Amino acid sequence: MDSGTGEMRTRSLTAIVLAAGKGTRMRSDLPKVLHRVAGRTMLGHVLAAVREAGATRVAVVVEPGQEAVAREVERGAPGAGIYPQAERLGTAHAVLAAREALAAGGHDVVIAFGDTPLITGATLQRLRAPLAEGAAVAVLAFEAADSTGYGRVLTQAGRVVAIREEKDASEAERGVRLCNAGLMALAGRHALALLERIGKDNAAGEYYLPDAVALAVADGLTVAVVPVDEAEAQGVNDRVQLSVAEAAIQARLRRAAQLGGATLVAPETVFLSADTVLGRDVLVEPHVVFGPGVTVGDRVTIHAFSHLEGASLAQGVSIGPYARLRPGAVLDEGSRVGNFVELKNARLGAGAKANHLSYLGDSEVGPGANIGAGTITCNYDGVHKHRTAIGAGAFIGSNTALVAPVSVGAGAIVGAGSVITANVPEDALAVARGRQATRPDGARLWRATKGMKQK
Amino acid sequence: MDSGTGEMRTRSLTAIVLAAGKGTRMRSDLPKVLHRVAGRTMLGHVLAAVREAGATRVAVVVEPGQEAVAREVERGAPGAGIYPQAERLGTAHAVLAAREALAAGGHDVVIAFGDTPLITGATLQRLRAPLAEGAAVAVLAFEAADSTGYGRVLTQAGRVVAIREEKDASEAERGVRLCNAGLMALAGRHALALLERIGKDNAAGEYYLPDAVALAVADGLTVAVVPVDEAEAQGVNDRVQLSVAEAAIQARLRRAAQLGGATLVAPETVFLSADTVLGRDVLVEPHVVFGPGVTVGDRVTIHAFSHLEGASLAQGVSIGPYARLRPGAVLDEGSRVGNFVELKNARLGAGAKANHLSYLGDSEVGPGANIGAGTITCNYDGVHKHRTAIGAGAFIGSNTALVAPVSVGAGAIVGAGSVITANVPEDALAVARGRQATRPDGARLWRATKGMKQK
Amino acid sequence: MDSGTGEMRTRSLTAIVLAAGKGTRMRSDLPKVLHRVAGRTMLGHVLAAVREAGATRVAVVVEPGQEAVAREVERGAPGAGIYPQAERLGTAHAVLAAREALAAGGHDVVIAFGDTPLITGATLQRLRAPLAEGAAVAVLAFEAADSTGYGRVLTQAGRVVAIREEKDASEAERGVRLCNAGLMALAGRHALALLERIGKDNAAGEYYLPDAVALAVADGLTVAVVPVDEAEAQGVNDRVQLSVAEAAIQARLRRAAQLGGATLVAPETVFLSADTVLGRDVLVEPHVVFGPGVTVGDRVTIHAFSHLEGASLAQGVSIGPYARLRPGAVLDEGSRVGNFVELKNARLGAGAKANHLSYLGDSEVGPGANIGAGTITCNYDGVHKHRTAIGAGAFIGSNTALVAPVSVGAGAIVGAGSVITANVPEDALAVARGRQATRPDGARLWRATKGMKQK
Repeated sequence: MDSGTGEMRTRSLTAIVLAAGKGTRMRSDLPKVLHRVAGRTMLGHVLAAVREAGATRVAVVVEPGQEAVAREVERGAPGAGIYPQAERLGTAHAVLAAREALAAGGHDVVIAFGDTPLITGATLQRLRAPLAEGAAVAVLAFEAADSTGYGRVLTQAGRVVAIREEKDASEAERGVRLCNAGLMALAGRHALALLERIGKDNAAGEYYLPDAVALAVADGLTVAVVPVDEAEAQGVNDRVQLSVAEAAIQARLRRAAQLGGATLVAPETVFLSADTVLGRDVLVEPHVVFGPGVTVGDRVTIHAFSHLEGASLAQGVSIGPYARLRPGAVLDEGSRVGNFVELKNARLGAGAKANHLSYLGDSEVGPGANIGAGTITCNYDGVHKHRTAIGAGAFIGSNTALVAPVSVGAGAIVGAGSVITANVPEDALAVARGRQATRPDGARLWRATKGMKQK
Repeated sequence: MDSGTGEMRTRSLTAIVLAAGKGTRMRSDLPKVLHRVAGRTMLGHVLAAVREAGATRVAVVVEPGQEAVAREVERGAPGAGIYPQAERLGTAHAVLAAREALAAGGHDVVIAFGDTPLITGATLQRLRAPLAEGAAVAVLAFEAADSTGYGRVLTQAGRVVAIREEKDASEAERGVRLCNAGLMALAGRHALALLERIGKDNAAGEYYLPDAVALAVADGLTVAVVPVDEAEAQGVNDRVQLSVAEAAIQARLRRAAQLGGATLVAPETVFLSADTVLGRDVLVEPHVVFGPGVTVGDRVTIHAFSHLEGASLAQGVSIGPYARLRPGAVLDEGSRVGNFVELKNARLGAGAKANHLSYLGDSEVGPGANIGAGTITCNYDGVHKHRTAIGAGAFIGSNTALVAPVSVGAGAIVGAGSVITANVPEDALAVARGRQATRPDGARLWRATKGMKQK
Repeated sequence: MDSGTGEMRTRSLTAIVLAAGKGTRMRSDLPKVLHRVAGRTMLGHVLAAVREAGATRVAVVVEPGQEAVAREVERGAPGAGIYPQAERLGTAHAVLAAREALAAGGHDVVIAFGDTPLITGATLQRLRAPLAEGAAVAVLAFEAADSTGYGRVLTQAGRVVAIREEKDASEAERGVRLCNAGLMALAGRHALALLERIGKDNAAGEYYLPDAVALAVADGLTVAVVPVDEAEAQGVNDRVQLSVAEAAIQARLRRAAQLGGATLVAPETVFLSADTVLGRDVLVEPHVVFGPGVTVGDRVTIHAFSHLEGASLAQGVSIGPYARLRPGAVLDEGSRVGNFVELKNARLGAGAKANHLSYLGDSEVGPGANIGAGTITCNYDGVHKHRTAIGAGAFIGSNTALVAPVSVGAGAIVGAGSVITANVPEDALAVARGRQATRPDGARLWRATKGMKQK
């Protein structure tokens, strides 16, 4: 989260994010950059990286008419400029859709892509670093396991002399494994001029961003190369690649959680969100899913098959297996949620327990209260949601329905199988159920009537 | 699913499937070929491949007395010939158990194995293709990562000259990595003659199918080799290999679903059946299991930890987490099934909701109805199953038991905690529960009686 | 589990287990060796290996004041000597904390580590074997994929001549890939003398156990090398390594279960405990977690998303999906537990069923009984747990609460939605619920009152 060191902190940074791809191979009605990894859109990841890199100005180039993309930009980078790209004439053309941001001046420009969600702020920082040393352009490049199809980065004495597209490469050049990742940094004072000189004299008739390198070299400017891991630079073009990106980000998040002091018994079966916070000595059993917005304190145990989203767990809490915590679930210190229990917009006080087959919605449960198996808060009357309040130390018998709005006072007891429609005062005992009628031999009779065989 | 092109479509194809293995290493009472991958028996997969390859006649060689195998043949290839192999004297001997099918004549013969579930119809098509070009025999072969133990396929100018068993191979021949996969195609006019000439002059005293190659070569006939991926040709001999085959088929199914427009957040945790159909913009969270017979429409969300089997989901449906859809579950457009909810032989009308802790069995729920948390259809009286009908827009309060046969009319309301035993007319309000009795200070008294500490 | 063969059986074995590490990189309040893999502490795994190797005396060196470690030693190796290491002055110094055990004499000494949970008894047996052939010392060594940082084992004619720390190694020696795993065996008659001669003349000023090798070689004694797989010898220093060890042990356990005749459809999603017992023709669907103490008979099906701990399943049982069996769950032959059902300290008789959304705690259910959906045993009154007894062939209607202590006799029927507080005699019929009141048009009226739109 460091916004750079030394000179970099004093240099302004304009980030241009290209987010206008059609994403045809996604086969989706959703714009490609809005597909999610680790609970966050791909565009959201890139905007976060740009923010971490210390961008002072952000410009996002979008497909015209994609309102949802514009909203996501506003969410991920409030105040960012949004520039529709009317025609699709190549990457350099796309960048120039944000000409206004380039023309505004500044020290450094970084160009990133909305479909490379693995890119980190640290990498963007490394990419711009050569500009402070006098380079006019810096290209991000990786050693390809298989370089087929990539543009090769040709270097001499550590400086880039050309980016050679595969079809134009000589036999020797094809052997080069250093490939262009696409991301580029440009010195602000050269950026616009270089980009505007890029032509479209090629087979596709497109304006290619990598051509900026040849122009800079021809001008005698320095073009630096910055290495990056191949995986980090990968773009996502279909849903197989989307799941590969998801796996890579999950690996990062899991490793960080483990090294921070959380045991993930089977990390490959635990899915975190980019914003998941796990404390020290947290134990996560296999098969757990963390949606966005979860914070877990120290010494918490999360048993298998739990699903959390927008939930806050204080220290010493234990949940699951099969706990389902929905947004607004707040578990105070030492409270417990057991199997087949759902909490939504509900707080469990310190040491309170809801161990079996329950639904607590729009509820407040006091410290030390015991919610019996099969308890259900009837929080919805078909139109509105209502609240249920359960006091400290109250005991709710099993299979009870609490028809909200309703309160059960501190220390009160509700008998099993009750339907509670009226408030129960503190220390009161409430029962709301039918009386038991037992007919001797009734079962035998009933079976006889039905023609069933007797046991 | 293409049954071949050009000449192949006009040539008849006899497929002989060897399914008589004992499968001792499976350590199972179930015949080996009936073990399942992706929800279908291994034999079922092979029969499907044979069907895709356009077989006009199918003959399956089985262990005598394995009725269950015969039934599976009838299911997977209705009308196929079933030939018991009385003695176990080698693969060529096994093929000749289906002598009748060979003697019936025809253009092409393909020999496949009931324990290679990964083989595809396309591969079988490729295997028979050389026959149309004049080859007498075609063998399927793979480049082995480690060829130890396999028969090496020796070629000259693209034609097979011999299949050399490892023990008979020279040093140089052992270096050959092209290995015999076992599957073979034979020209119908040569097949029976070649097979009948195979002898048992070897250490084990068995009739080996690969010996057909040497006989054909000796006759001056052409023997072609057709390459296949090593994984696709693997046989299953124990349960470790069974799970390897499962993983390979799952990888295929997942990839196809993803490229078709479904997001599998964590494909490695999603298990599909061979017949699973997923629409476009379907989102599948981690940890989901699809049993056989599931069809999912467009824009459906399947949250984590869901389990589906024999279910049909229309577009815009959302289920889970922890949704369990059993055979006969039909979810109309935009309906929702939430956590810890089981549907069996039940239909949810458009926009209807069953969000928490419910069991709907043998039920029909009208459009827009709301099924409260903890609703249970009592569909079983110990002998028979009965139906429950809930009308459009009805509201079933939480923790309600509906004792079938019973109906709740359109627009009716059932109060929380009710046990409904009589039909509820349209727009009526029904309540069936005890009245609440609240004793002030009753809890304190009760605790005192029991010697418990007060809160 | 073989305690050695031939001469080894007649030789005594002293095992010294070093378990005093701080484990700072675990970032945990729990001592490192108490972290678990496959449901057992790392120390527990090592003690089990030592027991399997036939140790006649066990000495464990511990951090002073770690009571929990001492208890775990007593659990895993009753009667073992526990030796606190007051100062941390190197591995040789640690071993000498157990000087008493060494001084007691005996044939063989093996030194193991509490943080290498993958080590097997068989490997420890192989490690001590050279001692019976006259070696004074045997070191365990592995071929490292990347030897950076490891001490290289230098050999001549199959005998170890030195263990060279990386910083002291020549260029050629650095090329050696055979690395010291740390575990060592020493002949009892040499052990104490060698260890006491180890000095601390090195950069860290520590007493290093591998120095015993140089001393033995200088004395003209034989030092043998015993190979081990790299993975087996790995120590665990942080939680990433802990999960790697977990994965390795799981792979072992899964493979053994599969080869024994259990189908694990997706073994990578099934988590076993070290003591899990699975019968023949057991089918385990994806996503299942076995905690400690589970025994599963033949022909049992465990559907997806099940969680078992301390449970016993007789042959022909079927559970899940989403079955949660807690300690004391006993399922007799052919009984069934369905989805969202929890059993704790409860027995299901032969052929009994609890198929949906139930909690059975502290209960005994007779053969053939049917537990309806939503049945809950109210076993807890806020202070004590009470028992519920359900007789053979009884039928418990759905959504029933059984307030314990209570019994339902054989063949009795309980009506749906009942709250049973009094015992139900054999063959009786009991109902305990409110009577249904239906108000025609009541729903329409209610909606009107609330200003809701009519359906």
